[in-house]
Amino acid sequence: MALPLSPTARSTPHRTKHRTRTDRSAVYEVLDAGLICHLGLVVGGSPVVLPTGYGHHEDTLYLHGSTGARSLRESAGGTEVCVTVTHVDGIVYARSLMHHSMNYRSAVVHGIAKPVTERAEKLNALRIITEHLAPGSWDYAREVNDKEYAAVSVLALDLHEASVKVRAEGPNDDEEDVRESSAWAGVLPLRQVVDAPVPAADLPEGVGVPEHVARRATPGTRADRRFQHTGTVSDMH
Amino acid sequence: MALPLSPTARSTPHRTKHRTRTDRSAVYEVLDAGLICHLGLVVGGSPVVLPTGYGHHEDTLYLHGSTGARSLRESAGGTEVCVTVTHVDGIVYARSLMHHSMNYRSAVVHGIAKPVTERAEKLNALRIITEHLAPGSWDYAREVNDKEYAAVSVLALDLHEASVKVRAEGPNDDEEDVRESSAWAGVLPLRQVVDAPVPAADLPEGVGVPEHVARRATPGTRADRRFQHTGTVSDMH
Repeated sequence: MALPLSPTARSTPHRTKHRTRTDRSAVYEVLDAGLICHLGLVVGGSPVVLPTGYGHHEDTLYLHGSTGARSLRESAGGTEVCVTVTHVDGIVYARSLMHHSMNYRSAVVHGIAKPVTERAEKLNALRIITEHLAPGSWDYAREVNDKEYAAVSVLALDLHEASVKVRAEGPNDDEEDVRESSAWAGVLPLRQVVDAPVPAADLPEGVGVPEHVARRATPGTRADRRFQHTGTVSDMH
Repeated sequence: MALPLSPTARSTPHRTKHRTRTDRSAVYEVLDAGLICHLGLVVGGSPVVLPTGYGHHEDTLYLHGSTGARSLRESAGGTEVCVTVTHVDGIVYARSLMHHSMNYRSAVVHGIAKPVTERAEKLNALRIITEHLAPGSWDYAREVNDKEYAAVSVLALDLHEASVKVRAEGPNDDEEDVRESSAWAGVLPLRQVVDAPVPAADLPEGVGVPEHVARRATPGTRADRRFQHTGTVSDMH
């Protein structure tokens, strides 16, 4: 069963090399398509993997670091990290169990994540992370005040040591199974959709959905009302 | 900006405790809803994060280990790992930039991953991983032969040290912003859909989609034909 493991040359130099791309555009594409990365670091000798918001500008990856491990924020010299972004695009059904697989795109970045402290760079990094999560919000929402600026932290990581792996094809059964099996084989494609915007419970009547939010919804998908009555729960204190 | 970071007590004991659940059912729910985990380990002192297929049976998490780091497969005593499964459920637009956030569910497991070598347990683990990826395939597809059995490896990890974090609500703006802002605030819900099954290019005419595959497609979603003509590319050698 060829599951999507080992996307880095560093961890597995000898397997599935043909799936690996190292050109920048491939790395950018996978990063641009995701919302969170999985940030790996070593804390007290042990591995820790944290889901983390990010954004990138050219060859610099910015990570939201406010609630991550303290060592990340406090080490001016930087912390060695591995950042992985994965999209699962399909479930591959083969004639044989061991050729069941997934279609996927995965980017892995190794490097040293350093806290960004210079004001202009930090504000720019916050803009990049925000615009990655919510394009258009930087110019629309209330700006960052001094207290918020002081409380947030951002890490920067060079995208130099990065690679991408992609599987995007049908099942790859043994010839004998293709010849002799009467089983179905194929792919179930997976796709992320954005449902219609759900206004906050405390939003005044008549406040329309702005264009930068509305245009993100996937055409034709259902409205979802789950959050409409829980919009003001105070939970971040 | 409260992005979904630091879901473990181990890494951040002092923040967002109210979001943390440690009951088994919460851990199971997050694991059951995912297809891949992000497996973190330390290789040569450096962090590595690999997207990895998995399955669980009660309190044992099984990981597909065939293409992971060699140290994982060869250490009979086990390797310390951190396994994280994250679902992003929505983008939270707030009146202020710094309260932009995501809705998410995230499970984090710390422990020692050990290779499974006893035949009955290893076959059972392969069944669990396969049935997690493709329920119904274990009894439908061609069984594992001796060569395949020898080539594959599986790791087992106790789910004892695991926690879950969930954010599932609307924006949490400051009172002053709620009072004074005329900006829109709310959630864009995200959802993964399964499109219609795409048969392999080399599938004979007349082989119907079996029930265990067909029932997985999300009602009403589009058919997708991308993979129909690439089904026999030989890519796993």
